[in-house]
This record gives sequence, C-alpha cells and structure tokens, in this order.
Amino acid sequence: MTTPKPYERRAYYYETDKMGIVHHSNYIRWFEEARLDYMKQAGLLYTDMEADGILMPVVSVSCRYRTPVLFDEKVFVKVSFDLFNGVRAGYSYEIVKASDGSTAVTGKSEHCFIDEKTRKPLNLKKRYREFYDKGVSLLEGVNAERK
Amino acid sequence: MTTPKPYERRAYYYETDKMGIVHHSNYIRWFEEARLDYMKQAGLLYTDMEADGILMPVVSVSCRYRTPVLFDEKVFVKVSFDLFNGVRAGYSYEIVKASDGSTAVTGKSEHCFIDEKTRKPLNLKKRYREFYDKGVSLLEGVNAERK
Amino acid sequence: MTTPKPYERRAYYYETDKMGIVHHSNYIRWFEEARLDYMKQAGLLYTDMEADGILMPVVSVSCRYRTPVLFDEKVFVKVSFDLFNGVRAGYSYEIVKASDGSTAVTGKSEHCFIDEKTRKPLNLKKRYREFYDKGVSLLEGVNAERK
Amino acid sequence: MTTPKPYERRAYYYETDKMGIVHHSNYIRWFEEARLDYMKQAGLLYTDMEADGILMPVVSVSCRYRTPVLFDEKVFVKVSFDLFNGVRAGYSYEIVKASDGSTAVTGKSEHCFIDEKTRKPLNLKKRYREFYDKGVSLLEGVNAERK
Repeated sequence: MTTPKPYERRAYYYETDKMGIVHHSNYIRWFEEARLDYMKQAGLLYTDMEADGILMPVVSVSCRYRTPVLFDEKVFVKVSFDLFNGVRAGYSYEIVKASDGSTAVTGKSEHCFIDEKTRKPLNLKKRYREFYDKGVSLLEGVNAERK
Repeated sequence: MTTPKPYERRAYYYETDKMGIVHHSNYIRWFEEARLDYMKQAGLLYTDMEADGILMPVVSVSCRYRTPVLFDEKVFVKVSFDLFNGVRAGYSYEIVKASDGSTAVTGKSEHCFIDEKTRKPLNLKKRYREFYDKGVSLLEGVNAERK
Repeated sequence: MTTPKPYERRAYYYETDKMGIVHHSNYIRWFEEARLDYMKQAGLLYTDMEADGILMPVVSVSCRYRTPVLFDEKVFVKVSFDLFNGVRAGYSYEIVKASDGSTAVTGKSEHCFIDEKTRKPLNLKKRYREFYDKGVSLLEGVNAERK
Repeated sequence: MTTPKPYERRAYYYETDKMGIVHHSNYIRWFEEARLDYMKQAGLLYTDMEADGILMPVVSVSCRYRTPVLFDEKVFVKVSFDLFNGVRAGYSYEIVKASDGSTAVTGKSEHCFIDEKTRKPLNLKKRYREFYDKGVSLLEGVNAERK
C-alpha cells in the first residue's frame, strides 16, 4: 500500500470565534476528519467497522497550538500511525499551512475498540481479524518507511 | 399542568464567530435545547420517547435574525407549542435578551415521528398513545390560555 | 463569467447526532460553506469584503429536510443567486446526494450588508461600487441563463 | 474570595454523535465554559479583559476520556487554577456525573495573553496590573486551601 496523502482542508467561517481565528476545539475535529480519511486511504473503512458492530472511541487527545489558522486558509493535516495492537491505536497529527508550510497545530490521539452493543472493550485480533491484519501491516509499512 | 418556563441560556465563547456575534446556526441549536426543555417540563421526555424506539426528526426550520446576541449575554428562549396531531408537531420560538427584553431571534420548526428501526413515519396516536394523549392535552391547555 | 460549480462535501463523523444522521443545524453551515465558495468562484471574495470593513450577516434562513445525510456520504450543494440590489442578497440551496442525485435538503437565506465598525446597514452601490457592479453582473448572468 | 462553585451543565442533543454519546471535541468546549465561569466567579471577567484589548488564547489542551456522557445527563465541571504568572495561566478540569459522582473526563489547558491588535504575547503584570494582582491572589488562595 502507498502512504496515504495528507488531508486537505480550508477553515470555514463558522469555525472561527470572536478572536478572529479558528476556535481551538475545531482542530480536534480536523484530527478526526484526517484520521478517518487516512484509514480510508489505507483500506480500513470506519463505516465497515461500524457495520460489523465495532466502534473506535477516543481514549485521550492532546493538542498544541502554535500559529492560529484564519478563515478560508488552506491547511494540510498530516497523520502518523504510531501504535496498533488490536486493543489500542495511536495517531499523531501535524496541521501545516499550505501558504508557507509552517506548523499551525500538532497533536495526538489514542483510541480503543468497543462492541457497539455491550460497550465493552474488545481485541480486534479476536473479533475482526481482517481489520487487525490490515492494521498491523499498515503499521509495519509505516515503520519500515521511517527507517 | 402549569405553563413551562422560558429556557434560560448564556452565549458561549465558542458559539461566536469572527463577526464577534453568535453564529446564526447556533440559534437553531438553542431552539432544540429549549424545545426539549419545554417538553420535559410538560412531562413529555424525549429520552422516554427514544427508549420506546421513536425519534422526532426536524422536517423544516426557519429563523429570522433581528439583533445579534453577544458573548456571555443572557437570553430567554420562549417556546410556543403550535401544532400536534400525532403525526406532526410544530413549535415557534422567540429569543429575548434578558437585559432589555428585546427580541433577538424568532423562528419555527416542524417535526414528524419515525420508528427508530424502520425509519418510517408513524402516528403517535396508534404507536404511543400515552405520549399522544399528553401532547393533545398540552396543546389544549396552551390554546385555552391563549384565548 | 462561467456558472460556479456545485460545492462538494462529505458528512463528517462529528456532524452526526445520536439519531445516526447529520444534525439538522449543520446543513445551515453547509449552506454557508457553499455560499462563500459560490461567491469566491464568481470573483466576489468575502475576505476582500471584510478587508474593506463590510460584513454580510444573515437576516433569515429556512431549511426543509427531505432525506437525511449519513456519515461519509458525499453531497453536492447547489447554490442559486436569487436576489441582489446592494442592500440585500438572497440565495437558495439544494443539497443533492452524489450517489443517486436525490434531494436531501433545500433552503434559502437572505443577507444584508453592514459596516464592521458602526454595525449599521449600508448600500454596496454607494460604499463598495466594484463589488456592487460584480454582484449585479453576476445576477444578470444567472437570470439570462434561466431563460 | 470564596472558592468558585463547580460549573453545572447538561449534555445537549446536538452534542452527541452517532456513537450515541457526547462527541469528544465537545468536552474541550465545556472546559472553556467552566473556565470562563470560574474566572467570572473569581471576579476576573473575560469580557473586561477583552474590553482592555487583551486576549487569552489556548496554548495547549489535553483530555482523557473515562466514561461517556449521554444526552441530557447532568455533570459538574470542577476547575482547578494551577498556574498563573502574568505570562501563562494553567487550569485542570474534572467532569463529574451528577448521578453518581463518577469521573467522566479529565483534562488540562494552558493559556497565554496577547495584545488584540499586535497579536503579540504580553505580561499582565506590566499591561493589566489590576487583573494580574487578582490572579495572583486567587492562586494564593487556591494554594492555601490545598494545604
């Protein structure tokens, strides 16, 4: 599989606040958009996972704000796949301004997998082997490229 | 049943946009907050309805903006129950500034009832008689007060 | 000028609510995205207008919901420029599903123009002639095509 | 000054996502609501600060999700004032369910102060002494209580 492309996005008017910049909570949403797009590009569709009765809630998130993004500014959200073991998945993010390549925001998120009905944590290795294998293979590819 | 009290609310910082005022889409959300609060005060809990497998989606909404609401301003959302026949329900809203009683926003919404599973429209009179009777009785009370 | 292209969009996960569909308030936001994109394609940049100290707040909005949009569904937002006289501007919208061309949502919005500092209404014909001329010419083009 | 009371809140319908729980980005917004309320109770009004041309953007935020909050659930957001030196301010948060006192979400945020016009960082000690003194005194009170 080829490396997923960075996710492209412009800031919407309603995402700004009275400070005149994108409200800090919205970058967390952009992380989600970029993460799901990354997974989709890698052939790991969240809609498939949901259809199989599995959800991937967020366990933790962190975000560091460097330069504010303005209305209609174009950015790329670069996603790194950092961790995957069937029980947990971890991503990190860098939001980069298209105009000059400067870093606007960085962040991380960690996720678990739960059964939609019982809401109990599960191990994809046991419950959804196909998805697990794809995830492991994606992570191996990512790690190989890093070297 | 006594008439439900107006719903009280302050504008949050993240609800403003770079124009320095509450973004127009958020008043639609305040309508929802006020509508569900109104129903709750009238003993018609949306959580009960959902537990019974019934959803109440919005069929149409309209909104007229007169004076913008600013960050941290306190408003009252007055709800009127205009229409209910088991198949449709209609509400109108007036958002009033606590400071001077002036009208900031007015609007209307119309709703139907659907089965959570089939997603098909239903008649509360047949499917959820208890809720239907309460709704009819609430509307009668409202209409009696108007005279 | 050629007719602006429909605005393309996918539904984000965080735009859904517990009914499993896009929350009705978000379509109002999509209207805004599509409207600003339409204006941009027509050479009427909102960022230019703001830089000139002019804002274009929403006076009224209405929305009719026909078929819900689901997570990750692709839609086109078609914008019509209905009214422009330097004091008011009017748009109508149709959100169409990419999968089958069916109409999901329709709506309308009306806007005025105000001075950023005084917050008083203004006439673009007097205050921002270049923008006014472009707007009139755009509307004429749209009307000519309709015949 | 007496210790500010925890901020009370119910989860709105539109804050849920198709997972049936409050979307994780919204807790970041609740932190903001609670932080501004805490400051207000302590006599440090953000509206005053803004009127003086000073903004308090977020430098970093982190959030850990333990138990999801459901539609209409009542929570308390407990704010701790951890750090203040005129250049930086730090808060931590605990969102607690009113029903059983269990912890739903915890988090932290760090802030700086900037000039609204130049957008450059500033030291409240030099620029807004009154606010600085109040902040220092609040932090001392908080620290004294902790012992």
